[in-house]
Amino acid sequence: MIVAMQDAAAEEHIQSVIERMVELGFAVHRTTGAAQTILAGVGTPQAFDVAEFTVLPGVQDAYRISSPYKLAGRNFRPEGTKIKFANGVVVGGEEVVLMAGPCSVESKEQINLSAKQVAESGCKFLRGGAFKPRSSPYSFQGMGIEGLKIMREAADKNGLLVITEVMEISQIEPMLPYIDVFQIGARNMQNFNLLRELGHVRKACLLKRGIAATIEEVLLSAEYILSGGNYDLMLCERGIRTFETYTRNTMDVSAIPVLKKLTHLPVFGDPSHGVGKRDLVPALALASVAAGADGLLMEMHPNPDKAMSDGAQSLFPEQLNKLNAQLKQLAPIVGRTL
Amino acid sequence: MIVAMQDAAAEEHIQSVIERMVELGFAVHRTTGAAQTILAGVGTPQAFDVAEFTVLPGVQDAYRISSPYKLAGRNFRPEGTKIKFANGVVVGGEEVVLMAGPCSVESKEQINLSAKQVAESGCKFLRGGAFKPRSSPYSFQGMGIEGLKIMREAADKNGLLVITEVMEISQIEPMLPYIDVFQIGARNMQNFNLLRELGHVRKACLLKRGIAATIEEVLLSAEYILSGGNYDLMLCERGIRTFETYTRNTMDVSAIPVLKKLTHLPVFGDPSHGVGKRDLVPALALASVAAGADGLLMEMHPNPDKAMSDGAQSLFPEQLNKLNAQLKQLAPIVGRTL
Amino acid sequence: MIVAMQDAAAEEHIQSVIERMVELGFAVHRTTGAAQTILAGVGTPQAFDVAEFTVLPGVQDAYRISSPYKLAGRNFRPEGTKIKFANGVVVGGEEVVLMAGPCSVESKEQINLSAKQVAESGCKFLRGGAFKPRSSPYSFQGMGIEGLKIMREAADKNGLLVITEVMEISQIEPMLPYIDVFQIGARNMQNFNLLRELGHVRKACLLKRGIAATIEEVLLSAEYILSGGNYDLMLCERGIRTFETYTRNTMDVSAIPVLKKLTHLPVFGDPSHGVGKRDLVPALALASVAAGADGLLMEMHPNPDKAMSDGAQSLFPEQLNKLNAQLKQLAPIVGRTL
Amino acid sequence: MIVAMQDAAAEEHIQSVIERMVELGFAVHRTTGAAQTILAGVGTPQAFDVAEFTVLPGVQDAYRISSPYKLAGRNFRPEGTKIKFANGVVVGGEEVVLMAGPCSVESKEQINLSAKQVAESGCKFLRGGAFKPRSSPYSFQGMGIEGLKIMREAADKNGLLVITEVMEISQIEPMLPYIDVFQIGARNMQNFNLLRELGHVRKACLLKRGIAATIEEVLLSAEYILSGGNYDLMLCERGIRTFETYTRNTMDVSAIPVLKKLTHLPVFGDPSHGVGKRDLVPALALASVAAGADGLLMEMHPNPDKAMSDGAQSLFPEQLNKLNAQLKQLAPIVGRTL
Repeated sequence: MIVAMQDAAAEEHIQSVIERMVELGFAVHRTTGAAQTILAGVGTPQAFDVAEFTVLPGVQDAYRISSPYKLAGRNFRPEGTKIKFANGVVVGGEEVVLMAGPCSVESKEQINLSAKQVAESGCKFLRGGAFKPRSSPYSFQGMGIEGLKIMREAADKNGLLVITEVMEISQIEPMLPYIDVFQIGARNMQNFNLLRELGHVRKACLLKRGIAATIEEVLLSAEYILSGGNYDLMLCERGIRTFETYTRNTMDVSAIPVLKKLTHLPVFGDPSHGVGKRDLVPALALASVAAGADGLLMEMHPNPDKAMSDGAQSLFPEQLNKLNAQLKQLAPIVGRTL
Repeated sequence: MIVAMQDAAAEEHIQSVIERMVELGFAVHRTTGAAQTILAGVGTPQAFDVAEFTVLPGVQDAYRISSPYKLAGRNFRPEGTKIKFANGVVVGGEEVVLMAGPCSVESKEQINLSAKQVAESGCKFLRGGAFKPRSSPYSFQGMGIEGLKIMREAADKNGLLVITEVMEISQIEPMLPYIDVFQIGARNMQNFNLLRELGHVRKACLLKRGIAATIEEVLLSAEYILSGGNYDLMLCERGIRTFETYTRNTMDVSAIPVLKKLTHLPVFGDPSHGVGKRDLVPALALASVAAGADGLLMEMHPNPDKAMSDGAQSLFPEQLNKLNAQLKQLAPIVGRTL
Repeated sequence: MIVAMQDAAAEEHIQSVIERMVELGFAVHRTTGAAQTILAGVGTPQAFDVAEFTVLPGVQDAYRISSPYKLAGRNFRPEGTKIKFANGVVVGGEEVVLMAGPCSVESKEQINLSAKQVAESGCKFLRGGAFKPRSSPYSFQGMGIEGLKIMREAADKNGLLVITEVMEISQIEPMLPYIDVFQIGARNMQNFNLLRELGHVRKACLLKRGIAATIEEVLLSAEYILSGGNYDLMLCERGIRTFETYTRNTMDVSAIPVLKKLTHLPVFGDPSHGVGKRDLVPALALASVAAGADGLLMEMHPNPDKAMSDGAQSLFPEQLNKLNAQLKQLAPIVGRTL
Repeated sequence: MIVAMQDAAAEEHIQSVIERMVELGFAVHRTTGAAQTILAGVGTPQAFDVAEFTVLPGVQDAYRISSPYKLAGRNFRPEGTKIKFANGVVVGGEEVVLMAGPCSVESKEQINLSAKQVAESGCKFLRGGAFKPRSSPYSFQGMGIEGLKIMREAADKNGLLVITEVMEISQIEPMLPYIDVFQIGARNMQNFNLLRELGHVRKACLLKRGIAATIEEVLLSAEYILSGGNYDLMLCERGIRTFETYTRNTMDVSAIPVLKKLTHLPVFGDPSHGVGKRDLVPALALASVAAGADGLLMEMHPNPDKAMSDGAQSLFPEQLNKLNAQLKQLAPIVGRTL
């Protein structure tokens, strides 16, 4: 870490800061300028709070320098993480992997039809939510485990893998038999107890960026899962909250290449939540892959106008078909296949 | 709800929209202008998603109009909610109620000393965290239930009530014997399962605004708790995330009078998380009460420089004393006591 | 416009609102529900402030409904605006038009070399700033009109058109002989006097979105220029300010398809300012075209490490070459040429 | 400045960075850790762009350390700046100074009545806009110099000073005879040419924070004016743009104590623009003074419902009276007078 003292800081204040740095486990190198003294702390204590230094007397500013995540950093696995699934699908390799399906599993008919359409369009994963606690207590709340069972069947019949959201630790165990990937939603990105548990599970996870989370915070949350020993982890950009209200969120497409640079983990884009309106989804899906995404997570519904949730952002089946055909052409331009 | 059709929208599109509105339970009144048709939906269906209309053909925009929360609305209890505690303290009445204590319960000595100082400064509640899942997996994670026991003792010895954060449903039951108020942290503001459970508990709650939550979303989350039958609920502004990085968050002081207008629930300010630096906390504490807060939640530590978490934003005991003396003078100017 | 009255609003308050609406030129249609009264104002007064209604007694909320821009709206010219330049280049047609060059014109050698490289890479416009008032008063401030002269020569020698930023009304006249497009920077997006003047000029303009401007505000600013009679106008997304600090700004790629839907004006992306780091620029350039951009504005410098401004976000010439080759392949996938 | 190299950065990359630092005028001190090398640059080159280093090979991150403003920094004048006006009013001293008046000067009657009410309520300055370029080209655009003349007369009759907004360099000269303070609006906070001109004027200025400006950027803009020799400068927080839409902007009350700490310049709050709704203005006015503001700038109108601009956020005269009475009581609690 680095502590920059104020111009003409008192020597006793400088000494107090040095003392505290040593206490935390740093070796301190001091640089004394004409006006300003700079203290460089060498070494990597497990955990410390850089903010603590900013309020010490005589301190102008303090910088962490070493990144607070280690396992998630690109250096840890420079060649990139590849996640291999039973049916041969590989995430993080050359292929751009597509995941699609309805926001909620609503019925056997709906999920079967969805699975068929999703498979026909060229996607490899069926998505669909079973637990849907919504922002209004008066809205549809999901089919629960029953929903997962019928989704698994629908996926198997169509050669698809299953990704679905886990909301609580108590759901992990009962979900295990039915799914291939645990999706961790934006609201749970900093539910650290849940992350820690998922670190101990032998099942892939996809971690969504929180609506107000910085890229560094996404990587810190990833670190929680990795530090438990679960390396089959994907990240997903799905829009952040800004002042712009025309779109549901502002999809931070640049987060995709930034994450590809900072981490070895595969990075997905979720244009459905990113923009929230179906007519804009294809543009953002194409943009995400053009920007380097390893895959996409998209909402599609056999009949979006009757969807029980998120209908406005669900693609019609024929839109998904057309989009996937475009993505197939786009992939080679950025050195990928589909 | 209101649907504004595009200029010169086709009659068939207008009819489709009307049909869907009727299907949801609205009575529809149509206004036909020279260029534009406006559809007013009268009635209040339990749950509907206004976004669904924005993607229908011919629609320009759609507005919900009726607020999606009912029990939390000011109209429901125009005189305001008063929460009465065993020792006679009333939240939401004339008195501005102060809550203070360390970020984390660290030891018996620390919490005893904290409680003594908090009580002497004129606060009525002792705060302190027992479960501390932190953004880095390598940081101190809290003392758990053991911490609550010693906090309860420390509070009782000093005539204080106890407020502490609940992170998960499974913690509710074991926490009940030791606490007076369940604090729901910013990260859990939309953990709807947790909110629903807390709605069934006979214990007061304080719900913090999420870092990226709109005021309306805070009220929707409050509705979850109220709809379970628990009306002893306080809200708390604690800073939102913006582009400004000098402060930890941007404390939205205006949310305090806005919430006082929109809801009958008592509204607190948390200047410690709001600004994140102790030298700025008193200014924001004063500002919050000047703006109409029913109380404050503040971090104080007997020795902030050695705090195991959030030291940078914890007040020194003498700062808290001085601040509370100022608050005592300020309260009558805005029609309150302290 | 629509005014939603509060539940059980007093009849006198309803009457006051109706009176004020009529005064502004609206015909008012009243819908009386069981609890709530809704007032629909039909007609389109030139200018009114919808906020004025939100503070009237008994009002719950008020909505504008009709869009405040007319000339900029898609309906005004559904087929889209095409801007034709002297050398045959058309913006807003099938072709994706590329503009590149250094942040600042620094010297004859630098701008000549830049122009050569820009032309060779397949771009049609040379960009470069002559007036550079910077956020620090101690930084390089640009070469002024002298810079424009040498940029014009460099462009002509290489068959390029010239785009450069105008900062003040007094610069318009002297700039006219040397340029093809006036660029209006993000900071001037709401400099309405400047916009009004540019509306009277017979020269194309490119209006950049302000760092904190909503899409609607961009269109309102466009309306200023259009209402003066200048229809040769392009818009440009160049990043908005959010809480994320890894990138210089957050490039709102979704604004591109949104603008294409809402307006007939050509829409550009500026990935250089959007992300601020050269290694991320190609990803965002590709994403912008994939999302439907009519063109790109990019910073390139013959020797970025020695650039007098914005070196960090300027591409190396060979990066621009490689990128343009990729863009050429990408264009047909989204129905464009290059 | 500090440059932190990546773990195991190549020696040639380290040498390139050192070379570039030396070239800019830094003396470089090198700290070599087990994994990471840190380079501390000592000295203060006039202008350099820290971002340029972040894209050099082998660099992890770069930090400026020394603040980019000098004249605006607290150290430059630790005792604080006091601005003395002809009639004895002092801004930046013990007294909290109140400024109020209509958004726009609309007529002789309106401004005379306003001035009378403003003076009676205890304010020292009359505010009012003469040039009003609005976001819609179809709105009222102000009375111009004629408006200033009648405002000056109205102010003089009531013993008030005059503050009004300057929008362009060409307005400075004609405005000089009629005003006491040039207000620089949020949209012009980074109009550096205008700032430079105002630096050469012998008249006080009040600089408003831009809607998306960081606190550091406000101080950099202040530096422009100070570096021209004009030290009679006040700053003003007036709300920033965030995701919250209930209020017009989010008033960053914490910016007031932060600015008081970082700079010697007087700091004002503008609650009218901060919240945009008159019923919330008094709460934010009180909060601003409680947080340490040296004064307030407020909109008041003799008849807000008929105001030609910003009526929704203009106080009624009796509201201003009541508020000022509260402020008078509040001032001594924070060590001020009124």
